[in-house]
Amino acid sequence: MAEKEISQAVISRLPRYLRFLGELKDQGIERVSSQELSDIMKVTASQIRQDFNNFGGFGQQGYGYNVEFLYNEIGKILGIDKQHKLIVVGAGHLGQALVNYTNFTRRGFVFIGAFDKNEALCGTKIRDIEVRPMNELKDFVKKNDIDIAVLTIPKDQAVKVAGELIECGIKAFWNFAHVDLDVPKGVQVENVHLSDSLMKLSYSMTQFDE
Amino acid sequence: MAEKEISQAVISRLPRYLRFLGELKDQGIERVSSQELSDIMKVTASQIRQDFNNFGGFGQQGYGYNVEFLYNEIGKILGIDKQHKLIVVGAGHLGQALVNYTNFTRRGFVFIGAFDKNEALCGTKIRDIEVRPMNELKDFVKKNDIDIAVLTIPKDQAVKVAGELIECGIKAFWNFAHVDLDVPKGVQVENVHLSDSLMKLSYSMTQFDE
Repeated sequence: MAEKEISQAVISRLPRYLRFLGELKDQGIERVSSQELSDIMKVTASQIRQDFNNFGGFGQQGYGYNVEFLYNEIGKILGIDKQHKLIVVGAGHLGQALVNYTNFTRRGFVFIGAFDKNEALCGTKIRDIEVRPMNELKDFVKKNDIDIAVLTIPKDQAVKVAGELIECGIKAFWNFAHVDLDVPKGVQVENVHLSDSLMKLSYSMTQFDE
Repeated sequence: MAEKEISQAVISRLPRYLRFLGELKDQGIERVSSQELSDIMKVTASQIRQDFNNFGGFGQQGYGYNVEFLYNEIGKILGIDKQHKLIVVGAGHLGQALVNYTNFTRRGFVFIGAFDKNEALCGTKIRDIEVRPMNELKDFVKKNDIDIAVLTIPKDQAVKVAGELIECGIKAFWNFAHVDLDVPKGVQVENVHLSDSLMKLSYSMTQFDE
């Protein structure tokens, strides 16, 4: 099983490996060499072998990797062999986009609740999920064994709501609010800071213009 | 001005510096030491000094940094001292969320067009932006000097649309489609692969459970 000290850079590449392996699997391809994987993914074969060695190697060099085995093993490392129950807090456009994204469900990330402070939204449905008022949030989380809270609310509300959710036992946040959450040890946060990403793009544009 | 060889890790931290400096500026704080910045941002003061040294340092150690100067300089490096004109291709929930996000406008990223192949959406408005049919895309891009195309369309359409946009002169993509775009040198791509991000979160959860 995975070592705890694996670098963030390696971890960040795992979902990409999984995506390409999934595409090979869908095409009915059973085996792939690190060189072939290298050509598809546009990283060096040596990088791929180094990455995989973090997890015991997954297969024989020369002979190549069994696609389905590799896909399943990387899936296990990423924890997508289990189902995760999600709620979204903030049922605006972004929250709706996420709940509607069926790819997450296929990966085992299943939204079972949506919450918003806007009363006009409460009672409406996103797919088959009813939007509920914020005063039902804590009870819902306690009763439904939620794994991940997705925060698509403004930054000034996110810190308070995250604190309340931690009290209710939430151990993981997928945070779209543009603020760093200060969470106790054992609570995981993955941030998607969209404007940071957009600024990285404009940085690259600036560099190229010079 | 910035060196070309600055590491991605440093670049990735710049928007976060900008965010915290913006908050200090909004609070009317004029000077900040690297130690104070370190406390707020939860990175070491040494890291901050190292990061800033990539760009000439920005100020005197001991005496600290002028907040507004530092904010403006980092803004210039990130290219947000200029206005960027954006279009979004894909006016579903995610596309609508992005166009509606006023923070981007404040940073100089201004949406001026939205496109969708769904005829039912065409003619509707997101803020004051009319959703147009895909057959108007190329002409619009050529006539309006667009800097950034935001792709919020499925992966099977993204590659084709990106190719067409490159032919029309688009030099930068903010890509939400779950596919790697193969672009010529000089065209910049910043990916937001949401399911990759979600899998990184489930990886962290798995590690902590063990």
